[in-house]
Parts: sequence; C-alpha cells; structure tokens
Amino acid sequence: MSETLREKALRLDGEDGLGKLREKFALDEVTYLDGNSLGALPAHVPARMADVLTREWGELRIRSWDESGWWTAPERIGDRIAPILGAAPGQVVVSDSTSVNVFKAVVGAARLAGDDRDEILVDATTFPTDGYIAQSAARMTGRRIVPVAPADMPSAAGPRTAAALVNHVDYRTGRLHDLRGITAALHGAGALAVWDLCHSAGALPVGLDAHGVDLAVGCTYKYLNGGPGSPAYLYVAERHQAAFDSPLPGWNSHSDPFGMTPGYEAAAGALRGRVGTPDILSMLALESALDVWDGVDVEDVRAKSLALTDFFLECVREYVPAGRVESLTPGAHAERGSQVALRCAEAPAVMAESIRRGVVGDLRRPDVLRFGFTPLYVGFADTERAARVLAEVLAEVPAG
Amino acid sequence: MSETLREKALRLDGEDGLGKLREKFALDEVTYLDGNSLGALPAHVPARMADVLTREWGELRIRSWDESGWWTAPERIGDRIAPILGAAPGQVVVSDSTSVNVFKAVVGAARLAGDDRDEILVDATTFPTDGYIAQSAARMTGRRIVPVAPADMPSAAGPRTAAALVNHVDYRTGRLHDLRGITAALHGAGALAVWDLCHSAGALPVGLDAHGVDLAVGCTYKYLNGGPGSPAYLYVAERHQAAFDSPLPGWNSHSDPFGMTPGYEAAAGALRGRVGTPDILSMLALESALDVWDGVDVEDVRAKSLALTDFFLECVREYVPAGRVESLTPGAHAERGSQVALRCAEAPAVMAESIRRGVVGDLRRPDVLRFGFTPLYVGFADTERAARVLAEVLAEVPAG
Repeated sequence: MSETLREKALRLDGEDGLGKLREKFALDEVTYLDGNSLGALPAHVPARMADVLTREWGELRIRSWDESGWWTAPERIGDRIAPILGAAPGQVVVSDSTSVNVFKAVVGAARLAGDDRDEILVDATTFPTDGYIAQSAARMTGRRIVPVAPADMPSAAGPRTAAALVNHVDYRTGRLHDLRGITAALHGAGALAVWDLCHSAGALPVGLDAHGVDLAVGCTYKYLNGGPGSPAYLYVAERHQAAFDSPLPGWNSHSDPFGMTPGYEAAAGALRGRVGTPDILSMLALESALDVWDGVDVEDVRAKSLALTDFFLECVREYVPAGRVESLTPGAHAERGSQVALRCAEAPAVMAESIRRGVVGDLRRPDVLRFGFTPLYVGFADTERAARVLAEVLAEVPAG
Repeated sequence: MSETLREKALRLDGEDGLGKLREKFALDEVTYLDGNSLGALPAHVPARMADVLTREWGELRIRSWDESGWWTAPERIGDRIAPILGAAPGQVVVSDSTSVNVFKAVVGAARLAGDDRDEILVDATTFPTDGYIAQSAARMTGRRIVPVAPADMPSAAGPRTAAALVNHVDYRTGRLHDLRGITAALHGAGALAVWDLCHSAGALPVGLDAHGVDLAVGCTYKYLNGGPGSPAYLYVAERHQAAFDSPLPGWNSHSDPFGMTPGYEAAAGALRGRVGTPDILSMLALESALDVWDGVDVEDVRAKSLALTDFFLECVREYVPAGRVESLTPGAHAERGSQVALRCAEAPAVMAESIRRGVVGDLRRPDVLRFGFTPLYVGFADTERAARVLAEVLAEVPAG
C-alpha cells in the first residue's frame, strides 16, 4: 500500500533537521501559515522584554542609552541581520518602517546615479507602498517613475535610468524574481538596483554582497519574527556609503550627535541611514527574537521552504477538486518564494472558514488565498492539514 | 525661627495636589530630574506589555491587527494625546520619530503655502535635528532656510515666507517661546506656523487649536512617559487636512490600504499623516503609559511645574556659592518651560558626580547642567535635594 499524504507528512517531519526549532516559538494547535505577514512569537521574548521594561527603562532609565546599549542598537541589530541577507557587517541599519526606508533608498539611489539620469523604474507588481513612496521620491528629486515588470527591467533600463526598485518576492503571487540577473542588467545600463526584501529575507538566501546589490530595504516582522511593526532595515553597500545622501538626515545620523551643532555632517558607514531616536522597545524585541537564528543556515531554511511548498502543492492537487483553485505561484523552484498563492473565486468566504477551523492564512482581495511557509516553525503535518482543511471548506462553500 | 528650605519642601509636598501621582511610577531613592529626556516608567506598563506580547502577539497573532485594535492605534493614541495639546479629536496621529514628522510637517507646510513662498524660517536655536531635517525639506521643495531667533520671527516673516518651524521650549535653556504671538504674527504675514512641542507637551498648556497653530510635532518619551524612543506625533489642523500633501505617502495613509491599488489616494483626516506599519510594541507601551494622565488637568501640571522651578532656583541661590553657576532659564514665568539650565564651567565633572550621588540631571556640552522637572512624579523634597547635592559637589570640584 502506498504512503498516504498524512503518513508522508509525518515521515518528512521526522526527517526535518529544522523541526526542533518549532519549540522555540509560542505556538498552539493553530496551523499558522501567516508568518509571511506577522511572524510567530519566539517564546523567550516576553521575559527579555520584562527585563527591558522593569530594569533597563524602570531602574536605569536614561543611563540605559549607554549602559544597556540602546544608542547603538540600530547598527548592532543591523549587523545581526546582515548574515541572513548575505551582507558583510557595517552595511545594514535597523530603523523606521519599510516605507520610510524605501524613501531613503530611492532618493539615495537617484542622487548616487546623478542628475542626468531622470527615470526610476518601479516593479509594476510591487507592494503598493513601494510605488507610492517611489513616486514621492521621484517627484522630490525631479525624476519620473516608469512601471516595469521585473522580468522586463533588463530591457527597460537605459541611459536615463537612475535606479530600479524591485521586490525580491512578489507579495501577492509569491513569485521570486532574479535578483542576480536583474541587478547585473541594471548595472550594465549604469543604473542602481534597490531591492525590497520583505518577502524573501529569512526564507531564502539573498546574497546582497555576492550579487552586487546597491541598496536594499526590508521588514523584520515576517520571516524574522521581530513582532508587530518591528523596525525595518536599510542596506547601503559599503562602496556607496561615503556618497549616500539621505533625504532624512536626522540627528542620529550625524557624525557627532551629541555635539548638537547647527550644521549637519553625516556619520560614516551604515548609521548614516539612521534618522531620529530609535523605538527601543520594538527594536529590542526584534533583537531578542533573532536569537532563534543562532546556528541556523539560511540554505537549510530554503531547502525546507521548497520542500514545504512542493508538498503543499502536492496535497492541494490530491485533495482539492479540479478547477476550484489555481496556483499563482510558479512551479519552478528558481521562481518561487516561500508562500503559495491560490486564486479562488470564493476566497473571502473560504479563508474566513479556514481560519475558524484553525488554519490561518490570509486573503489578498479580491480572490487570492495566501499561505506562507515559515520554515523555522511550520512543519509538513501543518502543511498537509492546511490543504485538507482547504478541501473540506471548499466542499461546503459552493462554487460561485 | 524661619522655615528652612528642607522644611519648606516638606510643607509644599504636603500641599501638592498632584503628589499622589508619584506612586504610579517605578521610582526609587534616585532623584530623577531627567524626565525631560526620558520619562520614568509608569508602574503598570510592564504588566500591560506582558499581555500584548503573550496574548495579543503570541496567541492572537495576525488577528490582533483587528481584534486588538493594532491597526487603529496611531489615530486612537493621537486622540488620547490631543487633549494634552489642546487639540480637538481627529487632528493628531502617532507615528514614526520626531525627525520624520518634522519632515512631513515642513514639507507639508511648504506645499500648503504655495510655490510663490520660497523661504522657510527655522528657529536659530533649534534642537539640531529640526534644522537638519528642515534643510532637507527645503532642498527637496525648492526653498531656502532662514535661521531666525524665535523672538525675531514676527519681524522676519514676510511675503516670501512659506512657514516657520519653532520650538515651543528651547531644549538647552528651557526658554518658553510665545506660541500664541508668534503664530499670530506668522499668520499676519500669510505664513504657516509649525511648532515642535517636544519640550513643552505634558509640562504646560499648549493650546494648539485655541492659538490657531497649523502643524505641530512632538515626541512622547519625555513628559508623556511613553518609553525609550516611543513614537512621535503629528498634528495637522483640521482646516489643512484636505490639502495636506505628505512627502511620505505610505500605504497606511491610503484611503483603502487593503485595496492595494497601484494608485495613491490619501485618506481623510489625521491618518493622512501615517506612513508604514506602526511599531506596535512601542506604540502600545505609550498608550498604556498615558493612563497616568486620566483626570489630570494640564493647568495644574503647569502650576506645579512653575512652583518646582521657582523653588529650585530659590534653593540654588541659597545653597550654591555665588559665581559657580548661572541660570540660562528665564526668571519670568511666561518665558520658562519645565526645566532649569545652569551654566557651569565644570559642568561635565559636576553632573557625573551628581549622578553618582543619586541626583540625575543631564549635560549639554560643553557647559550646561540641565535639570528637568516632571510634575507628575517630581516633588519639592527632590528639588531641594538636587540643589543641596549640587552645592556639595561644587564644594568638592574646584572652580576651573
């Protein structure tokens, strides 16, 4: 008798070298496939935050800016994230939201490219905020936006292109774009590559340094489990740092912030990307959450991610009646991030019912079911359950 | 026999209607006069944050964006702060750092003023970040910065003035500027008034609506006790909201953020000042911290603040040998914020030793001792002690 999918799931969980990491998270009977929106809570974080609140803030108060290392947290945590991005130390700073960092990165890239390059290419399928913010950056630097599908960027880039802003993984479909090839093509046209890593970092290797990326941004509350709205990061390649000209030159990016001089003089290195006083509570929760990455190789994470999404697609094919859902996520590994997006005419009702039954994904209006696979804590039994519950729900929700 | 200063302190503490608020804070034997840099921890905040971490994030996870009210926190907490600023609901949003909000406010004000007004006045004695950011805002909107002392703004404002950025209280000297008169004078010249309330809000009445202020920003980690780096706020007067054109139009400020449409359409009201995903942990700590304001009248806070700084100056005059310190803080109540700044040639050594002896103020290089009086938890005995310790330290630190 051949192995059932449920048996296969248990076997794969037994063989999973990362499986033991799950116990580091506060998880319950819910199958949580929304870690690509908000990562689960690493179980040790509340105790660390109790110490931050009661001792660092409550007892040391102002002294903690020095004694508890609050002041240097943005660059220290940046260096902690850097290996996950394939970046050497000194190039990543944690600060502000992703949107604010997109503004810094796009304006910074446009200025690095010079005034004779007056076009900024923006991923036409981008997460909306990137497009809105890039539009403002273009308006405020005297440039224009050209929406281009990522695959078309190599042919679209030319002598007028200052930079391109591209998502590494499409938030809607889960499609993985060719960071290496697109970056090389942009460089071939003399343009800079700015990557948004929100949906890739922590789920697959990025290789910022290896592929010569110029600037990058990303959030930390998805695959990095930093907590709701935890601060984002900005990567500025070392070769660009001395000329990086931030549109938000706050006092935290000054070379001598406590000199409090009226004239601005930018600090060296990654901390030139800082702006104002960092949100320490959110930032230190992130720092604590990153402990779960100790000893984890992102190549192993990627291998498990692909095994999970392969297995989910296999379970969906097996369980779900033909025609009810259509995968928007590419089948080819080289084009797949760490989520599976299924188009489904009844998506709103289906996702609501799936959540009621303990399988949490999310909806992207009007008709996309998103299932995110976070390899640090999602297993194969979760995956089989998600597909099975989806089939059960679809059997009860009439086709539209 | 006349009353000693120590006896007077005890009498004043006994008469202090706000004195009972002190027990709401985590305080120890330290006399903490640095609440104008980082407010003390309200004692109930750690328990609230434990619930946010373990239940809202750990158990509800993504559902908390709706069910725990995370998504609406920026405008909800803004409305909580509004009465402290003298603002009606719907005009204040909590989001980002002060620096980022200065950028939104100055760019927004310049655009509201129109293109024929090409000058932005900036408080020549400003906290540095305001000047740095205003410079960037001017550069990116085709305007130029004119540094002007606040008292000179009425005469400096003219037909080319788009807006002025002014500090309500000078961070260094503690001087309180005439918000009402300067705002009226700017309006007389057809310019907008943008106020930085970092060193005033929570210590004295601001009266944003009553005085017709156009835009304002401020931090929440000083007199509002929101915690290290807690998010800042932006006030946009209702009459300007429909035309307010943010330079950081992130998806959180979209009229339909989850529509995820490629075109930007600004939301109505205060939340047009939002940008990206809010830093929920820092934000909810702030919201919890604001509970200590329940039932507190900011006029009472102001009365106590003036009594504290009057008493501190009296104690300094009595205890400290003539010539060792000089007050930079105005004697007139109408010109005094809630701190006392003393120029002292030996300031670095003196403050270090004062802190070792349990009286925490801070230093502004090269020669200013700052003592902040936060009326919710600083009393008159603290104040007498601070002056006494200062005198003791000065007796041991030789005059330079």
